[in-house]
Amino acid sequence: MNTIKEVFELYGFEPLETPAVENLETLTGKYGDEGDKLIFKILNNGLDNPAKREEIEKSFEKILEGKNDTNITERALRYDLTIPFARYVAMNFSKLTVPYKRYQIQPVWRADRPQKGRYREFYQCDADIAGTTSLISDAELALMYLKVFEKLNIGVEVKINNRKILSALAEACNSADKLVPITMAIDKLDKIGIEKVKEELLKAELNAGQINFIEKYLTIGGSNAEKIIGAKNLLRGNETGMKGIGEIEYILNLAPNVIIDFTLARGLNYYTGVIYEVKAKKVSLGSIGGGGRYDDLTGLFGLPNIPGVGISFGVDRIYDVMNELNIFPETLNTSTKVLFFNLGERESLAAFAAMQELRNEGISCELFYENAKMEKQFRYANKKNIAYAVIIGSRELEQQTCIIKDMEKEQQQTISIKGLLSYFNN
Amino acid sequence: MNTIKEVFELYGFEPLETPAVENLETLTGKYGDEGDKLIFKILNNGLDNPAKREEIEKSFEKILEGKNDTNITERALRYDLTIPFARYVAMNFSKLTVPYKRYQIQPVWRADRPQKGRYREFYQCDADIAGTTSLISDAELALMYLKVFEKLNIGVEVKINNRKILSALAEACNSADKLVPITMAIDKLDKIGIEKVKEELLKAELNAGQINFIEKYLTIGGSNAEKIIGAKNLLRGNETGMKGIGEIEYILNLAPNVIIDFTLARGLNYYTGVIYEVKAKKVSLGSIGGGGRYDDLTGLFGLPNIPGVGISFGVDRIYDVMNELNIFPETLNTSTKVLFFNLGERESLAAFAAMQELRNEGISCELFYENAKMEKQFRYANKKNIAYAVIIGSRELEQQTCIIKDMEKEQQQTISIKGLLSYFNN
Repeated sequence: MNTIKEVFELYGFEPLETPAVENLETLTGKYGDEGDKLIFKILNNGLDNPAKREEIEKSFEKILEGKNDTNITERALRYDLTIPFARYVAMNFSKLTVPYKRYQIQPVWRADRPQKGRYREFYQCDADIAGTTSLISDAELALMYLKVFEKLNIGVEVKINNRKILSALAEACNSADKLVPITMAIDKLDKIGIEKVKEELLKAELNAGQINFIEKYLTIGGSNAEKIIGAKNLLRGNETGMKGIGEIEYILNLAPNVIIDFTLARGLNYYTGVIYEVKAKKVSLGSIGGGGRYDDLTGLFGLPNIPGVGISFGVDRIYDVMNELNIFPETLNTSTKVLFFNLGERESLAAFAAMQELRNEGISCELFYENAKMEKQFRYANKKNIAYAVIIGSRELEQQTCIIKDMEKEQQQTISIKGLLSYFNN
Repeated sequence: MNTIKEVFELYGFEPLETPAVENLETLTGKYGDEGDKLIFKILNNGLDNPAKREEIEKSFEKILEGKNDTNITERALRYDLTIPFARYVAMNFSKLTVPYKRYQIQPVWRADRPQKGRYREFYQCDADIAGTTSLISDAELALMYLKVFEKLNIGVEVKINNRKILSALAEACNSADKLVPITMAIDKLDKIGIEKVKEELLKAELNAGQINFIEKYLTIGGSNAEKIIGAKNLLRGNETGMKGIGEIEYILNLAPNVIIDFTLARGLNYYTGVIYEVKAKKVSLGSIGGGGRYDDLTGLFGLPNIPGVGISFGVDRIYDVMNELNIFPETLNTSTKVLFFNLGERESLAAFAAMQELRNEGISCELFYENAKMEKQFRYANKKNIAYAVIIGSRELEQQTCIIKDMEKEQQQTISIKGLLSYFNN
C-alpha cells in the first residue's frame, strides 16, 4: 500500500478518506441487482422502543419481501470507493481544487461467500480525477498502473479498450438498443468462451449476421498497431468508433506499454470512455485492477456533467499474487533495531537509560521486559528480526560498558555505554 | 497518525489490523449495558428467504424486546480496538512472539448522538503489550504518551492512578463489595463535582464515615511526592494499597513527568493495575487518551491469565485540539512539487516527456490537463500549494528551454529543458 501511495503522490494525487458507514440510499441502485444484495446493511438502534412497536413490525414486513425500510435500516457499509467519491465530489465541489485528483485507500465490504481471491472485507486503492476530459489524465492512470507493478516487481498486462468502440460495435450491427446485453456477454468471454458468448447474444435476440459481426470484432488480433487497423476497417464510417479508436491512439502515444484488448468490456455501466483492466502474467487470479472514464457520475448526486476517470487496485489480490510469486521482501517485518537485554534490576535500569538516549535520536529499541535467561532473550531478538543485541550484565554495569552483538553477522564487541549513541549513529 | 505511528515503532511495536466486522457475540457484554446499546449491528442478508419467513419473524420479536438473535444479526462493527486485540491474541497466542507488542490504528463505530468531540465513526490508535507483568512496559506507555504529544506540540498532563489503590480504598473503609459503585462515582468527579459524588455514594448505601474517608482520599493534594505520602498515610497497613503505590513509584522513577491523580478512576471494569488518562492543558475537550493494565483480558476468549497493558489515543479529539490551538503545520497538504503548464498540444507533449523524467527520479509533478489561461494554471498551483511552475510555451519549445518559477519567492529563470532534472535534484 505504501508503494501504491508513493506513486499516487508522485503523480500529484491527494489522499481522501470517507466514512465506512454511508446512508443506505446513497448506495442502493448503484451496483446492479446483484450488487444491492451484497450490501451490508446496518440495523437501526432503538428498535426495542415499545411506542413504535407496531410501526416497526410493519416496516419489517418490507425487509421480509426483500425491500428496504428506513425504520429498520438506514445505513450501510461502503461497497466500493467510487460511489462515496462521487457523493463527496457532488457535496463539496465548490470547495475543491479542480481538476480534483484524489486517491483513497480504505476497506470496502461485500456480503459475498468468501473464497480464494474474494473477501467480505477487503481494501481498495483508488485514484480518480474529476473535472477534466483531458486524455492526458487517462494516460497518466495507465502509467501509474505500470509504475506501481514495476515497483512491486509483478509482471502485468495493462489492457485498454473504449466503451465508445463497444457502442460503435452495437451501432454498426444495427443493435444500438442492445448495447447493455452485448457488453455483458462480451464481459464474460474470458470465463465462458466464444461459443457461450454467441449463445448469450442469441438469447438477447441478435441475428446470425449481427453475431457474426461481433465475432469478427472479438477476434481482431495482432500488435497494438495491427489491432487499430483491424478496428478501423471493421467500424469504418462510424463516428463514435473512430473517436474511441482515436482516444486509444492518443493514450498509447503517452503510455506505449499498454495493450489493446477489444474484448475488454467491464461490467459496470457507468463507464463511457476508456476502460482498463490489469492482470498478473504468471498467476491466474482474475483482475488485480480496473477502471475507466465515466462522464457523468456525480449526476446521481445532483451535480450533472462532471467528467471523471479512475482506476482501482485490488490490493488483497495483489497480496495473494505476491505471496504466490514469493516476492515479498524479507525485511518487511523489521521495526526494532536494538534489543537491550534485561539481566537484573539495576542492570535493567541502566539499560533503560541508555535505551532512551537512542530512542531520542530516532533509533527504535526495546528492553526485554523480564530478567529471563539469555537464551530466551536471544530467541525474542531472532523472532522479531532485531539487528543488534545490547547486553549489560553486572560486570559491564560496574565498568560502565556493554556488549553489542550484531545478530546477523554473529559478531560481538565491548564498548562503553556512553559510546552507544555514536556506534548506532554511524 | 504518522507521528503516533513513528513513536510506536520507535518503542518496538508492530502494526496489526483486525476486521471492522466482528461476530456480534464477540462484542456483546464487554462494554456494559450502555455500551451494548451503542454497538452497530449488521442486518443478515437473505432475510427475504420465503422458506424461513416464519422463523425470521419469530426471531425479530426478540429484537423488538431489545435482545439479539443470530437469525437477524450475527455481525457487528468494531466498538473499540481492545476487545478485537484480545480475541486476536487468544486465537493466535501460540504463533505470537511474546511479550507481544502491537499497535493498531483503525476506525471504530458507536451509535452515539454525534456532538463536539464525539463521533459515530472515529479512529483509535492503540498500543498494547500482552504477556508480561513487567512495570517497565507500563512506564514505556506513559513515555510514549509524553513523546507523541511533545512531537505534536500539544501541552498535556499524563495522569496516573492504580486500580489497586481504589480497591484498597474500598477495603479500608469496609466496603470492598462496593468497589464498582465507588469507582463509578469517582469517575464522575470531574463532571459533577464532589457534592454530587457524595450523593451517589450515599445512594450506593455507604455511610457518613465511609463517605468522609473517600472524600479525604479524593482531596489528597500536592506534588507527586506529597501525594504518595498522603496516600501511604491514609491507606497505611493495607497490602493492596501499598502494592499499588509502590507500582506508581516504580513507574515515576522511569517516567518522572507523569502526574499522580488519585481521583482518576476510568470507567472500564477490566483494568486491574495502573490506569492512565491524558488531557490537553489549554483546551477542555475531555480526555484525549487513556489506558491501563488488565490482568486477564483474553480470559473472555478462552485463554486465561494473559496479563496486558495498553493505551489509546483519541485521534479525532487530538485533531480538534490541534485545530483549536491552530498548530497544524501549514505544509501538510503539499504533495506535488512541480506543476508543468499546458500551453497547447505540442507544448504539452514536450512538458509531459520532461515531467516523466522528473517523476522517474521520485519528484512529484503534475501537468495541467487543459490548455487553459496562464492565470487559471497559476491559481491551481497556488491552491495546491505547489512550489514550482515549469512553463513551456511555443517560443520555449522552439529553443528547447523552459521558464521555472519559484512560486513562493516569485522569482523566475529560463533554463534548458534538459537541465530540469539537475535543477530539481540539487
